Amino acid sequence: MNDTPPSSSAYARLCARAERIAVIGEALAMLGWDSSAMMPPGGAASRGDQIAVLSGLMHELATAPEVGDWLEAAEAEPPGSAWDQANLALLRHDHTRATAMDAALVEATARANAACEKVWRQARATSDFALVRPHLEQVVALAGQGARALAERTGLAPYDALMDGYQRGIASADVAPIFARYTAFLADALPRALALQAARPAPVRATGPFAVAAQEALCRQLSELSGLDYAHARLDRSVHPFCGGTRFDVRITTRYDEADFAQALMGVMHETGHGLYERGLPEAWARQPVGQAAGMGIHESQSLIIEMQACRSDAYLAWLSPRLADGFGADVAFAPDNLAALWRRVGRGLIRVDADEMTYPAHVILRFELERGLISGDLAVADLPGAWNEGMRALLGVVPPDDARGCLQDIHWYDGAFGYFPSYTLGAMAAAQLMAAARADLPELDAALASGELGVLTGWLRPRVHAQGSRLGFNDLLLAATGKTLDPGDFQNHLTSRYLTG
Amino acid sequence: MNDTPPSSSAYARLCARAERIAVIGEALAMLGWDSSAMMPPGGAASRGDQIAVLSGLMHELATAPEVGDWLEAAEAEPPGSAWDQANLALLRHDHTRATAMDAALVEATARANAACEKVWRQARATSDFALVRPHLEQVVALAGQGARALAERTGLAPYDALMDGYQRGIASADVAPIFARYTAFLADALPRALALQAARPAPVRATGPFAVAAQEALCRQLSELSGLDYAHARLDRSVHPFCGGTRFDVRITTRYDEADFAQALMGVMHETGHGLYERGLPEAWARQPVGQAAGMGIHESQSLIIEMQACRSDAYLAWLSPRLADGFGADVAFAPDNLAALWRRVGRGLIRVDADEMTYPAHVILRFELERGLISGDLAVADLPGAWNEGMRALLGVVPPDDARGCLQDIHWYDGAFGYFPSYTLGAMAAAQLMAAARADLPELDAALASGELGVLTGWLRPRVHAQGSRLGFNDLLLAATGKTLDPGDFQNHLTSRYLTG
Repeated sequence: MNDTPPSSSAYARLCARAERIAVIGEALAMLGWDSSAMMPPGGAASRGDQIAVLSGLMHELATAPEVGDWLEAAEAEPPGSAWDQANLALLRHDHTRATAMDAALVEATARANAACEKVWRQARATSDFALVRPHLEQVVALAGQGARALAERTGLAPYDALMDGYQRGIASADVAPIFARYTAFLADALPRALALQAARPAPVRATGPFAVAAQEALCRQLSELSGLDYAHARLDRSVHPFCGGTRFDVRITTRYDEADFAQALMGVMHETGHGLYERGLPEAWARQPVGQAAGMGIHESQSLIIEMQACRSDAYLAWLSPRLADGFGADVAFAPDNLAALWRRVGRGLIRVDADEMTYPAHVILRFELERGLISGDLAVADLPGAWNEGMRALLGVVPPDDARGCLQDIHWYDGAFGYFPSYTLGAMAAAQLMAAARADLPELDAALASGELGVLTGWLRPRVHAQGSRLGFNDLLLAATGKTLDPGDFQNHLTSRYLTG
Repeated sequence: MNDTPPSSSAYARLCARAERIAVIGEALAMLGWDSSAMMPPGGAASRGDQIAVLSGLMHELATAPEVGDWLEAAEAEPPGSAWDQANLALLRHDHTRATAMDAALVEATARANAACEKVWRQARATSDFALVRPHLEQVVALAGQGARALAERTGLAPYDALMDGYQRGIASADVAPIFARYTAFLADALPRALALQAARPAPVRATGPFAVAAQEALCRQLSELSGLDYAHARLDRSVHPFCGGTRFDVRITTRYDEADFAQALMGVMHETGHGLYERGLPEAWARQPVGQAAGMGIHESQSLIIEMQACRSDAYLAWLSPRLADGFGADVAFAPDNLAALWRRVGRGLIRVDADEMTYPAHVILRFELERGLISGDLAVADLPGAWNEGMRALLGVVPPDDARGCLQDIHWYDGAFGYFPSYTLGAMAAAQLMAAARADLPELDAALASGELGVLTGWLRPRVHAQGSRLGFNDLLLAATGKTLDPGDFQNHLTSRYLTG
């Protein structure tokens, strides 16, 4: 696990350093999981120190002077395989990002983000934007400085340099017209979907309570049936569900509500999609940059293709229906049509995380527009609540009655994360595009889903997405897998078929 | 969490470095707990790498050239408080140990230990000493080299230099006569105790099964009642029970047997004693050497004073009896006298970890004699099984029918741990000595135990043991707390009173 001997090539030394850094990253991932799923509250302060020290060590190892020297030397060495070349390019990319900001800016940003996030918790609880406003102003100012520093080194525009930190290979100039097209689609589709929905009888809600142990057993069973190997995974509980851990040791969490099992069940299938992706990443490159996931947008596509495309399909719901009766006892609400009506409802909501798949992009589009304005300086933080509410009215026809249900609802900006939001919708659109391509390739796909079999789908995804690691950026990966860069038409077709027919 | 600025004193820089190392150690402790309590089997290989890399970083930070310079400079600075002086002495002590062996020896030892431990698992399973013998020979040879290297730097005898790594402040020259005295005591006491035990009616075994959930609830309740704050602790399950985690975040594990709740219950109280010690270590020195536990012997004294001295006392059992009925339903076996007869039986057994408190020291004395011979070279590995069996016959009058129940039973030597075993009995003796002193100081102690109250005892221990950190070595700590260095008479009095009266 140590750096290679001095006789090795510069590239070999870079790889050895990357491996060492990746292993520390694995330790950090486990500590992060533990913080959310296991840690007693009294462990929080010392855990913060542990995370800070290990993160600091990673940064030191990544930015040490010899790394720059090795990169230059490696780039002058005879080129290796295509994978090695992609890996070297990513090593350079990561080094450029890691060294773009000076230490003072990194530290000031970390401190401002931590302080703001803390105040945000109180501001959201009391719906008091004024309380957190000065903190957010500082966070935005520092994020803007960071974006400009990254832009200078990467040649990307400042906001794109931020996006690039979450998802390589797609720029805001690609995203903006796609989002504009979706906005136009939604303006037409949403009223029609709502009218169709209103014309059908209201679905029957299942009669609870649903014992947590029974929910957990069913979640685990379906997750395993999907192909996730629990010799390399765990399912636990946390307040905010997530998929953490490492590609060797996937840690899924969920939360259980005795009145409603669907949230946990579909949540676990969503996180299972993330876990399947991690498990399918190329083993031979496990601790190199090229062996990591291709970005947050692609990661989200892998969770959504399982949860939204496969598990909410008519075929899968027909198979699931008797499994629910086995797990919880018979209930008329478990009829496949009723499950579809319950779990595929659209609505004009205020909260992103509660949104259905048709309106979710509107929440993202709003944030994309606003955060571009914040970073460019065109939108002042003071004007954010008004711009938010105006955007919600324009996009979804609803106006938050308070900022807690408006611009205070998400943690991202208050923790310094700008450029992340588009990933959610890029993932949803990529999922639809991949599913359309898979369906074209696999005549047996719907029959497989109708027998609860996700292996046919993941078998298609594995070589085309999982095993590609981060060799390709977002659009290049889609191009190779589906024959075209991101095309929102597939997602719109999916929504049309699911919500605008019958 | 970074090293202090260059303007600081050398001692301040040493403390900053120690803190950084300690924080990485905390991360390692959490990963160790996870490995045993949570990790799916497929995570093992990557976890090994994580532990190796973090351990390597700790070692690098501890042995970097500047540390030696800082130590010399700090020792020339005006002395600080008594605690600072003790801390500086420990920083020197730890540095001397960390740098005594050259890197090649450290690496060869780690590799030999890992290989031997792996083969030992199979050798124990098949009771095949010959299988592991060549590995153990290598481990013993390297441990001897390491001991001599440590001895040269520390001025201790080689075996004492190994003991010093687990418990500072007591040498084999102190231990040998104490163990000899105990051997003589046992030769007389054990037959008498067995005769008395045989003359009484056999105890009634409780009628199971005891549901795991009920056992777990009771274990947690009693552990909390003992004063362990579960805002800083968890109770989980593992194959081999332990107390892990950190002083901020104690992780206790146990295993449950539906046929016998006593093992889990008394096991959890044992680990709770370890946890109370960790929680009581001096907060102000949390990440400095002087703020750590004083050694494995003192640590064991804190688990045994809770489990053996307090929780198996007549007073506590009388209080516990109705709690068991509340937890599991009434059972005649729960009568206090019957619990005492069940949980305080002596016997001539083959297995250390199953031994009662009277015969346990004989198992340790055997290992102490044998491992001194292995390290000095007076005992060849080939002669170990014979010497073991002869020792068992002499000490306890039983001879193992196979090596699995003889010299293959414990992992310690096969993993390179020599000098650890005495800690168990030093701990048992220290526990009795501390309990005798506490009882003399606290007339209300038995009344408190009779109401299930361990706070009176831990309140006495906290300033005298817990809050002392590792300021004092083993004998000095006992001297300060009880007025005398280790005196096996208190332990013998305890056993006489518990097993040789009535």
